[in-house]
Amino acid sequence: MQLQVDVIASIGEARAVDLNQHTVIVIDVLRATSTIITALANGAASVLPVETVGQARQQYAEGDVLGGERFCKKIAGFDLGNSPHEYTSSWCLNKRIVLTTSNGTRAIQKAVRAEHVLAGAFLNASACARLALSLRRNVALLCTGTQDAFAFEDALCAGMILHEMMSDHRAGTIVTNDLGMLALSAYKQHKGHIHDAVRQCSSGKRLLKLGFSDDVEYCSLTNQVHLVPTLHEHLLIPHRESS
Amino acid sequence: MQLQVDVIASIGEARAVDLNQHTVIVIDVLRATSTIITALANGAASVLPVETVGQARQQYAEGDVLGGERFCKKIAGFDLGNSPHEYTSSWCLNKRIVLTTSNGTRAIQKAVRAEHVLAGAFLNASACARLALSLRRNVALLCTGTQDAFAFEDALCAGMILHEMMSDHRAGTIVTNDLGMLALSAYKQHKGHIHDAVRQCSSGKRLLKLGFSDDVEYCSLTNQVHLVPTLHEHLLIPHRESS
Repeated sequence: MQLQVDVIASIGEARAVDLNQHTVIVIDVLRATSTIITALANGAASVLPVETVGQARQQYAEGDVLGGERFCKKIAGFDLGNSPHEYTSSWCLNKRIVLTTSNGTRAIQKAVRAEHVLAGAFLNASACARLALSLRRNVALLCTGTQDAFAFEDALCAGMILHEMMSDHRAGTIVTNDLGMLALSAYKQHKGHIHDAVRQCSSGKRLLKLGFSDDVEYCSLTNQVHLVPTLHEHLLIPHRESS
Repeated sequence: MQLQVDVIASIGEARAVDLNQHTVIVIDVLRATSTIITALANGAASVLPVETVGQARQQYAEGDVLGGERFCKKIAGFDLGNSPHEYTSSWCLNKRIVLTTSNGTRAIQKAVRAEHVLAGAFLNASACARLALSLRRNVALLCTGTQDAFAFEDALCAGMILHEMMSDHRAGTIVTNDLGMLALSAYKQHKGHIHDAVRQCSSGKRLLKLGFSDDVEYCSLTNQVHLVPTLHEHLLIPHRESS
């Protein structure tokens, strides 16, 4: 079996690429996909990703948790912001989370026509790689970036997922594109020191400046969570590996 | 002194960036900038980069050498193709070369409004870094890519030039963008094994398939040449370091 596993630089680039028939792994390390993974790991029933604040308010129903950010900060009137630390089990257990973020939830919407849509981050990179392999489709690793600009931490995470896929004994030949080669090389260079690298990129520096150093540290942890958020009927629900 | 040294992914991305006041280093490792460097090192007086085949024929004057490629192959009626091996001193000495290639010469045209325009490749990476530092302007490392797609080998070379700049004892603080961080990491990972990496990227594989393995090997050599092609009045002329 040969799988094509390409890395896409930003949401803007994704528009030009045909994602039908693909497994798309949306990556927004700082912080949307890290937050979604954490919410589901802490017992949320599902996450509904929406693009705008208006849509979030409209979709909200009693019993839901309303979360999200603009300019990295909690939206007025919302229950929670976009910090994974806020998504504790006391907030999340059995709840539907309605979430809107500047980039990550928009990226999920762009991928909606794909065969499978997964949410990936360092926290669940290995589980993502295993699930993507088992789905037997070509893969697009969609780096969300920031306002259509390329983000280092997302590419580094794409490199990690690619590395985990290539290291899996079940994988046949895995072929990647040029950005995938670059991301994989960078991951190999920073393996074991992800946090140091993420602190230095533009999103990392911005979050540190705003006082979110705990988030930057937590989102740099690898393979803490063994579930993968997967999109079904517009809802992200947890896919857990059967052992 | 703080210098901003950003890596730009492709010609398409360059359009959106203000390059005025910058030193732009155009990089097309396979093969335009490697060929231009080689032609000047072998005694060419200058290289005139033009976008189209028609412009090349129009600009050609008696005594010039007409060179270029489309689809990696020599253009009908031209003296030379785009293989650096063709640009020997017997062809080049004291000649003006009129050159058109699919991507590299177009990238040079895009950069024409910059304060300084240099042509970089692995062959002259260190000389490029020294010259860019001495010019004391913010730097854009413009990866040419292929048909507006990102090219691994150009980013790897950008990473090398960035590394050489940061290693220079004269450099103050050098700040880079997220793609620069990724390119630098990838370069550190492949340092000493550039040829192995370049063979595996898409342009490398295409050239190998077309029988240009000598070109791929030669263009992967680092710091063989101590001159930098610099743009003056639409002509690239050699800048040699005074010792």
